[in-house]
Amino acid sequence: MAATETLTAERILEATEEVLRRHGPAKATVVDVARALGVSHGSVYRHFRTKAALREAVTKRWLDRTSEALGGIAGDASRDAETRLRDWLAALFTAKRRKAGDDPELFATYSVLAAEQVGAVAEHIDELTEQLTRIVADGVASGLFRSDDPGVSARAVFQATGRFHDPVHAGEWDTPEADADFEAAVDLLLRGLRA
Amino acid sequence: MAATETLTAERILEATEEVLRRHGPAKATVVDVARALGVSHGSVYRHFRTKAALREAVTKRWLDRTSEALGGIAGDASRDAETRLRDWLAALFTAKRRKAGDDPELFATYSVLAAEQVGAVAEHIDELTEQLTRIVADGVASGLFRSDDPGVSARAVFQATGRFHDPVHAGEWDTPEADADFEAAVDLLLRGLRA
Repeated sequence: MAATETLTAERILEATEEVLRRHGPAKATVVDVARALGVSHGSVYRHFRTKAALREAVTKRWLDRTSEALGGIAGDASRDAETRLRDWLAALFTAKRRKAGDDPELFATYSVLAAEQVGAVAEHIDELTEQLTRIVADGVASGLFRSDDPGVSARAVFQATGRFHDPVHAGEWDTPEADADFEAAVDLLLRGLRA
Repeated sequence: MAATETLTAERILEATEEVLRRHGPAKATVVDVARALGVSHGSVYRHFRTKAALREAVTKRWLDRTSEALGGIAGDASRDAETRLRDWLAALFTAKRRKAGDDPELFATYSVLAAEQVGAVAEHIDELTEQLTRIVADGVASGLFRSDDPGVSARAVFQATGRFHDPVHAGEWDTPEADADFEAAVDLLLRGLRA
């Protein structure tokens, strides 16, 4: 009974990730998750009412790991806006590359989940774009950047660097040119933002 | 026999496209192409030695249609470099959108072929990047643009606008925001290129 008493949403999500990794997104069931935790599937359903809700939560958790790490950079007032923009984009590229390269099975699993969880992905992109907007707005306020609408500029920067963070481009992240391409893109975009 | 006498590579490629559209890229055979033309498969092999060569040629023809249309804009000295860059990117987006929207089956077919024909696609991208390089270099020569290396800048512009021409993003071309997103991207990139 100890297992059920300490059963938290976080523990269920950890187990779900492990089950997804082992069985793949097509076969993983709530029963598998419950079995991995040594609890009844009813206990799992007390935290997540449906299998769909559990899948959404585990996808959100995976996406949030990236946005939380980046939030620190976006809000770091000790760096000027240009440095922050560079660091933020580099951190995003590094995080995505690491996810894809270190654990390709899990990355493939989450790519399948993300394709299902259109809403969670849209929220994630909105959150990242808001972080970028904050950097651009700070740059405008400090006179470093020029932008009629920081939100529009941030969205443009995010989309223009899609090659370096959108999972559909994961196959291009390990090419010999990837780092030089990334630098060239960021240089050009920063020139476009400068006052 | 009239059919064989006038059998040109172009006629075979046209028939191949039609056969691919009808049977799909997995099932289409050289025998189907020969049958559609009313010739023996030996006649087809006289022009294309293998099925792989035929598939490569038909893919190249599809890609070349886009680059030929754009080549006219890249070389049009009557437009200044900025107008040419804008027109070129808009024409590329329009062409890709039309291909995807007007005939989705054929577009899906060519997406499968393109994934096979890595060499043909790389050549196509090189050709488009060369056209862009020409525009950027002309802009630098006329004092409109600044770039240490027009080739690097052109590659950065091409990649930064991937959302608006790379087939992996075809699903995003019909969203209500697509046109505004495209304009914002081009504006930002042009600001980055201006002297």
